[in-house]
Amino acid sequence: MTKGEDTRDRILQHAMAIASEVGFEGLSIGGLAKSAEMSKSGLFAHFESKEDLQLQVLAAARRSFVDNVVAPSFRVGRGEPRIRALFEEWLTWEEGRVTPGGCPFVTASHEYDDRPGPVRDAVVAAQRDWVGAIATAAQIAIDEGHFRIDLDTDQFAFELFGIFLSFHLYYRLLDDPEARQRARTAFERLIESSR
Amino acid sequence: MTKGEDTRDRILQHAMAIASEVGFEGLSIGGLAKSAEMSKSGLFAHFESKEDLQLQVLAAARRSFVDNVVAPSFRVGRGEPRIRALFEEWLTWEEGRVTPGGCPFVTASHEYDDRPGPVRDAVVAAQRDWVGAIATAAQIAIDEGHFRIDLDTDQFAFELFGIFLSFHLYYRLLDDPEARQRARTAFERLIESSR
Repeated sequence: MTKGEDTRDRILQHAMAIASEVGFEGLSIGGLAKSAEMSKSGLFAHFESKEDLQLQVLAAARRSFVDNVVAPSFRVGRGEPRIRALFEEWLTWEEGRVTPGGCPFVTASHEYDDRPGPVRDAVVAAQRDWVGAIATAAQIAIDEGHFRIDLDTDQFAFELFGIFLSFHLYYRLLDDPEARQRARTAFERLIESSR
Repeated sequence: MTKGEDTRDRILQHAMAIASEVGFEGLSIGGLAKSAEMSKSGLFAHFESKEDLQLQVLAAARRSFVDNVVAPSFRVGRGEPRIRALFEEWLTWEEGRVTPGGCPFVTASHEYDDRPGPVRDAVVAAQRDWVGAIATAAQIAIDEGHFRIDLDTDQFAFELFGIFLSFHLYYRLLDDPEARQRARTAFERLIESSR
């Protein structure tokens, strides 16, 4: 990594943390320059515009999600064990190990659902890929004989996402100390009905 | 209703529609004056500050939610039929019959989860009340003999909320034409396991 790439990476990590708390619309090159103690012109060397910055932060968040959620699950066995690992890592990601405000994709999903444009398109692509990855993981669990053969894997992804989003609400907004336990109970019911 | 109350009510409906699309932080007395074709001083006669405006819009959204989601469900029988009616009205509410951007509480929940203050407190109170109302509806279904006696009604509320939030994501962001059908399938699985 060159020094320039290293600087850009550091700025993106910082911007990702901000976006997770105040949202992607709250990102600005001026604000970021201030909080990263850099000059605005220094920032413009890395990001052409606010939109370019938002798109690069989203791309950085995708890489971080793969590193923190997807990759660890590939260290456990295929099928149900991998789905369990994915789910647990996903909850830990939401608890803010990487970004203080939790999953930046949840924030972005709500900011851009009614705002057309390239940022929305990137958020949609990221969420569609993740929904597809969950369905694929469920298909592998079918192939491994862990889940029943007539399981609707897209429906499985829809329901797993719902458990995660309810966890987000209970953990972040309602400050429920039992949020993670509730998510696990719901998860067990979903797994049970998928076998 | 006096003329002043009528004007305020009209402004609140307009502001609620805006908040559902761009969020509560996107509300401003200046912006609202422009889009409602009123003077800024005319607006200040109704709202002391941006925060007061946000709190009044949330209160208006609560009244609207009661009128549009809760009240119709009281016209059907207690227990499971009422829970079915609540769920269907809640989905219709999200589809934007009242507010073009869907449920303003979902928007507000994500805007304020990391922003302490009176607006967050009001959002938390609204969401807690609704979670409590779902749990109470499930308790009534137990009392009516529709649901099993050992059902965890708080867990039921957590899971029903998850189905709704996933519906929000699939309907608003992913533009999935099967979103409502997916939500219903998940709902039937929840009801089945509650009996």
